[in-house]
Amino acid sequence: MEPLQIAPRAGRVRARLGDRAEALLVSDLSNVRWLTGFSGSNGWVVLTPDELVLVTDGRYGDQAAAQMAAAGVDATVRVGATAGAINDLLADTVKPMATLAFEARHVTYAQFQAYESVMHARLVGLDGVVEAERRTKDGGEIARIAEACRIADAALAEVAPLLDDGPTEAEVRNLLEIQMRELGAEGPSYETIVATGPTNAALPHHRPTHTRIEEGHTVVIDVGALYDGYHSDMTRSYVVGEPTAEQRDLYELVLDAQVRGVEAVAAGLSTKELDAVCRDAIAAAGYGDWFTHGTGHGVGLVIHEDPFVGRASDLILQVGDVVTVEPGVYREGFGGIRVEDLVVVTSTGCRSLTKTPKDSPCPPSPPTT
Amino acid sequence: MEPLQIAPRAGRVRARLGDRAEALLVSDLSNVRWLTGFSGSNGWVVLTPDELVLVTDGRYGDQAAAQMAAAGVDATVRVGATAGAINDLLADTVKPMATLAFEARHVTYAQFQAYESVMHARLVGLDGVVEAERRTKDGGEIARIAEACRIADAALAEVAPLLDDGPTEAEVRNLLEIQMRELGAEGPSYETIVATGPTNAALPHHRPTHTRIEEGHTVVIDVGALYDGYHSDMTRSYVVGEPTAEQRDLYELVLDAQVRGVEAVAAGLSTKELDAVCRDAIAAAGYGDWFTHGTGHGVGLVIHEDPFVGRASDLILQVGDVVTVEPGVYREGFGGIRVEDLVVVTSTGCRSLTKTPKDSPCPPSPPTT
Repeated sequence: MEPLQIAPRAGRVRARLGDRAEALLVSDLSNVRWLTGFSGSNGWVVLTPDELVLVTDGRYGDQAAAQMAAAGVDATVRVGATAGAINDLLADTVKPMATLAFEARHVTYAQFQAYESVMHARLVGLDGVVEAERRTKDGGEIARIAEACRIADAALAEVAPLLDDGPTEAEVRNLLEIQMRELGAEGPSYETIVATGPTNAALPHHRPTHTRIEEGHTVVIDVGALYDGYHSDMTRSYVVGEPTAEQRDLYELVLDAQVRGVEAVAAGLSTKELDAVCRDAIAAAGYGDWFTHGTGHGVGLVIHEDPFVGRASDLILQVGDVVTVEPGVYREGFGGIRVEDLVVVTSTGCRSLTKTPKDSPCPPSPPTT
Repeated sequence: MEPLQIAPRAGRVRARLGDRAEALLVSDLSNVRWLTGFSGSNGWVVLTPDELVLVTDGRYGDQAAAQMAAAGVDATVRVGATAGAINDLLADTVKPMATLAFEARHVTYAQFQAYESVMHARLVGLDGVVEAERRTKDGGEIARIAEACRIADAALAEVAPLLDDGPTEAEVRNLLEIQMRELGAEGPSYETIVATGPTNAALPHHRPTHTRIEEGHTVVIDVGALYDGYHSDMTRSYVVGEPTAEQRDLYELVLDAQVRGVEAVAAGLSTKELDAVCRDAIAAAGYGDWFTHGTGHGVGLVIHEDPFVGRASDLILQVGDVVTVEPGVYREGFGGIRVEDLVVVTSTGCRSLTKTPKDSPCPPSPPTT
């Protein structure tokens, strides 16, 4: 698999930081991982104009050094035994300087107070510096997300044919998660959604219960895999048995909106415009009120990240963005239908990383082997 | 199962808050759940002397009202569509008052700034008010934690006999997690640890890999279940095949330290004293350096919570505390051994909620059915 290009990232972040601060204290673990390759559960990065220092605790010193060396990142590791010792190491690394930027959305108020008491610098809250760079995926990242998609595709191909047998939501979830693990996933990318029937499927974020999947009901399955730290995200919706005219019409409507959305994805399109493509298609058929969430979001080391795609979002899609396109309709009494693919923005439009067929609401037959 | 006693909790928190602030803004979701019964992923509570108001987003309004009604909690639900609208609702609920306490460890600096701009009150960072009450488990909570323990016990009883067959760490983890789900768990309580061999088992927090379990190696399995929001936590260690004298001696040493710890647990003992009971037993045999972590921690709606039990902790155990007792020894080249039970402090000492046998490092034989 194509390697991650981690070493150049610090330079990109320094360039983006510019003269807004002399150094950046990175607290968010996904940002730390993206900058350094370090995947532990506790770590901070201080990025100065000429240094990258990672501070962690005793569990992770060797791991951090090994992962950064493997990534070709030129950095120093410093290890503190306690939270207080780690703060002191951060302060010692920062040294006296005029301004230190910190991630205000990723630092608690209590942590901010601790920094204030030890840092010899004016603290400036500054968000999104790393995220703005992290948003653009390199080839190695896209390969990992594609692999996570492949795993979820393969798991769903195994499990979807079983919907006709009347399993419970929880059983379907369990089978999907087991399959993904067996196919090489670190685990599910998020809490797998399996939602069926007139009440559960009407909830976009329903958690699987022991409700049994019944003939005539809609089933929404939202499933992704985690692979080498990278997420995938896909939704398929089914009707068990022969769909009613309403079920078929609404499936076609959502699918049409989703296909239009995927076809519209291109560098230069605004996220608001992309949202409107899907939303207008559903609203034109009179179901605008049934589409109760945004059209999509970025996916990478974090399952929900920029670029968010919704009515209120206002970003311009760029080459290297990886985003979901996932319109849906939901109504108590009817249930729900959502179709979601994960696509990467390319120089000529976009390429779907999700390969599961979506042309029909009928569960596939078991693969013939 | 004994019901949770949720309704009286707000009163206990009000009493503990005393006159330190007129109202408390609760941001931590576990604290919100404990106070209200609401289990959604987005919610805030404002607790005033005569009101409890829960603010959430549109996905959760009905669920919050239903869960609070079921819990007998007298409260108002307010629903905001965006983060800004939610902040405005919180400010409107707080109304002009002198001081509003907020949870400094659970509020980001960015969130604090947003509160500062909308609240008509002086904001006072105040941590641990809810946690100090949440620490003491009622009968319904203990019943749920005991059920989570029972599920993990049963899963390990199924899976431990397979260690002799040479599975990989990841395979053992997968089997344990599948078993727990099938036995009624919502999922694992935390990332299940299966660590084997001279290198992996020497890491207390090792993540399962495709390393195969081999004869002669130590295996550390740290597994818990999540049941109705409550966690369990257990560790058992094994040697596959005939243990060496060193393996047997160290197993006996850790087990002896752990049993002494459990026997010492009683209301009135300090966490530091409990830590010393286990630590001294291991240090007296010359292995003090091999015991590289704390002796235990509280368990409830959160897997690691007060009372933490370690050298630097200084709390007094109380009736209703649920804590782990989990000494261990680790050394590169040797591997590791940890034995952990979850116990509840009672008026006469403690009662173990973990039932898996621990007398031998040899994996159990398959159950004869």
